[in-house]
Amino acid sequence: MAEVKSDIEIARAASKKPILEVGAGLGIGPEHLLPYGHDKAKISAEFIAAQRGKPDGKLILVTAINPTPAGEGKTTTTVGLGDGLNRIGKKAIVCIREASLGPCFGVKGGAAGGGYAQVVPMEDINLHFTGDFHAITSAHNLLAALIDNHIYWGNEQNIDVRRIAWRRVMDMNDRALREIVCSLGGVANGYPRETGFDITVASEVMAILCLSSDLADLEERLGNIIVGYRRDKSPVFARDLKAHRPMAVLLKDAMQPNLVQTLENNPAFVHGGPFANIAHGCNSVIATTTALKLADYVVTEAGFGADLGAEKFFDIKCRKAGLKPDAAVIVATVRALKMNGGVKKDDLGRENLDAVQKGFANLARHIENVKTFGVPVIVAINHFISDTDAEIAAVQSFAASHGVEAVLCRHWAEGSAGIETLAHKVVELAESGQAQFSPLYPDGMSLFSKIETIAHSIYRAGEVTADKAVRDQLRVWEEQGYGHLPICMAKTQYSFSTDPNLRGAPEGHVVTIREVRLSAGAGFVVVITGEIMTMPGLPKVPSSEKIFLNEQGYIEGLF
Amino acid sequence: MAEVKSDIEIARAASKKPILEVGAGLGIGPEHLLPYGHDKAKISAEFIAAQRGKPDGKLILVTAINPTPAGEGKTTTTVGLGDGLNRIGKKAIVCIREASLGPCFGVKGGAAGGGYAQVVPMEDINLHFTGDFHAITSAHNLLAALIDNHIYWGNEQNIDVRRIAWRRVMDMNDRALREIVCSLGGVANGYPRETGFDITVASEVMAILCLSSDLADLEERLGNIIVGYRRDKSPVFARDLKAHRPMAVLLKDAMQPNLVQTLENNPAFVHGGPFANIAHGCNSVIATTTALKLADYVVTEAGFGADLGAEKFFDIKCRKAGLKPDAAVIVATVRALKMNGGVKKDDLGRENLDAVQKGFANLARHIENVKTFGVPVIVAINHFISDTDAEIAAVQSFAASHGVEAVLCRHWAEGSAGIETLAHKVVELAESGQAQFSPLYPDGMSLFSKIETIAHSIYRAGEVTADKAVRDQLRVWEEQGYGHLPICMAKTQYSFSTDPNLRGAPEGHVVTIREVRLSAGAGFVVVITGEIMTMPGLPKVPSSEKIFLNEQGYIEGLF
Repeated sequence: MAEVKSDIEIARAASKKPILEVGAGLGIGPEHLLPYGHDKAKISAEFIAAQRGKPDGKLILVTAINPTPAGEGKTTTTVGLGDGLNRIGKKAIVCIREASLGPCFGVKGGAAGGGYAQVVPMEDINLHFTGDFHAITSAHNLLAALIDNHIYWGNEQNIDVRRIAWRRVMDMNDRALREIVCSLGGVANGYPRETGFDITVASEVMAILCLSSDLADLEERLGNIIVGYRRDKSPVFARDLKAHRPMAVLLKDAMQPNLVQTLENNPAFVHGGPFANIAHGCNSVIATTTALKLADYVVTEAGFGADLGAEKFFDIKCRKAGLKPDAAVIVATVRALKMNGGVKKDDLGRENLDAVQKGFANLARHIENVKTFGVPVIVAINHFISDTDAEIAAVQSFAASHGVEAVLCRHWAEGSAGIETLAHKVVELAESGQAQFSPLYPDGMSLFSKIETIAHSIYRAGEVTADKAVRDQLRVWEEQGYGHLPICMAKTQYSFSTDPNLRGAPEGHVVTIREVRLSAGAGFVVVITGEIMTMPGLPKVPSSEKIFLNEQGYIEGLF
Repeated sequence: MAEVKSDIEIARAASKKPILEVGAGLGIGPEHLLPYGHDKAKISAEFIAAQRGKPDGKLILVTAINPTPAGEGKTTTTVGLGDGLNRIGKKAIVCIREASLGPCFGVKGGAAGGGYAQVVPMEDINLHFTGDFHAITSAHNLLAALIDNHIYWGNEQNIDVRRIAWRRVMDMNDRALREIVCSLGGVANGYPRETGFDITVASEVMAILCLSSDLADLEERLGNIIVGYRRDKSPVFARDLKAHRPMAVLLKDAMQPNLVQTLENNPAFVHGGPFANIAHGCNSVIATTTALKLADYVVTEAGFGADLGAEKFFDIKCRKAGLKPDAAVIVATVRALKMNGGVKKDDLGRENLDAVQKGFANLARHIENVKTFGVPVIVAINHFISDTDAEIAAVQSFAASHGVEAVLCRHWAEGSAGIETLAHKVVELAESGQAQFSPLYPDGMSLFSKIETIAHSIYRAGEVTADKAVRDQLRVWEEQGYGHLPICMAKTQYSFSTDPNLRGAPEGHVVTIREVRLSAGAGFVVVITGEIMTMPGLPKVPSSEKIFLNEQGYIEGLF
């Protein structure tokens, strides 16, 4: 067997096409591609506007079982499936999220796929890329500076300094900034108050950018951001501080989707990357809708497991953007099923059919849930070397008993050749006309009932509890005209329940709502059911210690 | 008379050449130009390395009298002179600093020149440009996160939490961040302590990037940053926290000079932008040294007036990079001379020969000072519509009496056609062989004597005073091996003295050293003589309120 190469070695050995050529393959002329180096480009707003009214390709969602430390390979499968579809003669575009720079120096590596299913240039994608996240950081922090500046110069809007809802952001894992007191040092520096920083991907500006259809929509949504409240509890909007227009200026280029390529030179849009807990966790609407105009097939992914990611993809992104997915792929690995079945990470190497069977309950639940949305499902078994034939056969027979095919995929090791079968099956499914997409709940339902609907239908909770304060807050928002908004659940990604240790397919559990937040610009109500960390910390030995420039000037250690 | 167009209108109407063509004109092949859009590009490290050993062109410094609210037009004159030299058949490159994004939303407009002497694309240059400042922000804040993380996980280096010298940075005018308490909120967030944010241009990482000869030098200097001290007062370096290598990774692209063009399609390198008070205020060494290999003439500028900017250009940048300037242009305007002569801003429109004469003392002093460095001088009178013939004649005759020519320049209104005379005179001066550059003081002089030398020779101070603590600190640094470093004075830019209201040419004043700081990575000792603001605030009505995207998607209000 050949030596196993690292992701970065594979990526560096890639034979990349000039990005203008990749764009030309999609019918995008060079005048509509803003190059960033020779291997990245942004697509012009004019080109995107000119696609309106053209027919859409098929939309395929890649989602997964509940994540485990064993890894599922959702992005890898998304990229692999895109390559697989191109291999079998379909024009396919992959749409994935951009990577957050901060975590690259913490514990995880990049977010550009893996093995022979990657998007390149992976170093750039994992670092500054085309600067989108930096632009979001700037726009977010401009608003923050304008808030404190407004108060400093007399506070004409009468913002209640105790009720400022807008923090600052930085694209860095920096726990020291989670909670701070700012404006210390006397008269010249303003009024001291408690505040803090979140990581950039948790910014509402990120969610807004990812849900906006164009720059005008972006500016409108930025204006709708609630930055805080007056003493009479009336909201103060970003537009009250005249912040939305310069924020849109800062985001002008960031709003345009980024075109890169897979290792097999197929087009990939890598654009936007909102948090999957306090935000909806999908790549940008503008990237997905543009891709649909240019390709037969668009393969995209959602964050975390299907209980969070797919639900939000359907109920927030698809609902808001009018998208109608044609099929969903649920990614599972034998290892992750075994972990969901109770096996510890160190014991994953041993065949354990019993654990696979137990873990399958988790997959079965996700299959059922996705079908609830009227989207036909197929399972991708992302192959690991340690998987035994018996284990794979077990997954396939379990799936069959649930009326779903489970296809073994070897794209990590073999690229598109290893995922051809899945590609054919996905085409069959998407072209079968089975899809009858509809969101889980109607816009008109009350906010609390929407939460209950998600908790009962998707999480199989027995009960949803919330303090009076939370229920009152939801009612106030309904009175203020926010009742039509969808819900964005912030829940642990490790379980259907709110207890990260409850693997498998728990039911009858209690979902307790700790807090609700209104993202009035993005257009959803965030419902928080556990400890949600919006600013990660660095581990004792951060990955940064292994990241360096080698003597040839190449970046090492990014994975 | 034709209607006067705004800078942004002129810039938008520019007929830009594709940047690859501009690069080709300098002999840079497309494989060595990393495009950012069609009008900006970075020059590859390989190309730069390959220029070593080639002969250098002539280096022209553009500096100015002490700045006043009337404006002098130093960048405008730098750009204009570059165009003028190209117009008279010399191959010339303009080397200027990048603009800081934060202040664009505060009080000032951009920093890309003005009128018909601008570099374009001015909107990009004034906003995110090629992301260099964002990269510097990230690298700086990675180090900050690693410091608090190191302490959080046990503080193996025994950093004295009271003696952390490294703050955080943001490219935003945000006074609320000047002084903060971080790490609040309990065990999970670390050890609360006082700290704060500076604006990105004040980061030592910025100064380091601008003084580094290549990536290896950059990494070495980053490692030399002192992040704080132990209880025994021994310094803790960035390399002790293994921070310098990932920081260099973040700065890999930022280290490469940016190529853009003037309105007349001549090449301009816009790269780096360190503060001119706590840092040296010049564009990057790598841009200047590369430009010298590619052009007959390189026109560059220094920050503030010649007392600060030119002195640092000579004593820090030229000394460290081995540059030998061939001539210096001192920019003056009749209006600014009148303000230096005591006239108020509102009265500048009236002819006032007496005030011009009084203000001339300021110019005369700068002429004399620059000559001290062995660099021949010429004066550029940057023409304003309100200037009278008599006032201009007065400046010219004053200059002549000091053995210097003063040339009237109309580049703002006329582009290169308006500055041809200056271009010819500069060529004469540079080719006269008069230049005998040497820095003001030798490396071996004691740190305090270096400070005294600057204060006496350049500021004409009578005395330099400093507390025992300051003198002791300087001696400790000498013992630690930092005695050879040059001095970086942080003083008001409005006066030769430390009193911003003392215009003209004061002498015999006292320079009081309030504080000294060691920028061990950049390689200089910062000497602070007054209130130095390293994080600006926003005014009551920030410029941001006028900045927006118009219906065609163009940015308005940036000037």
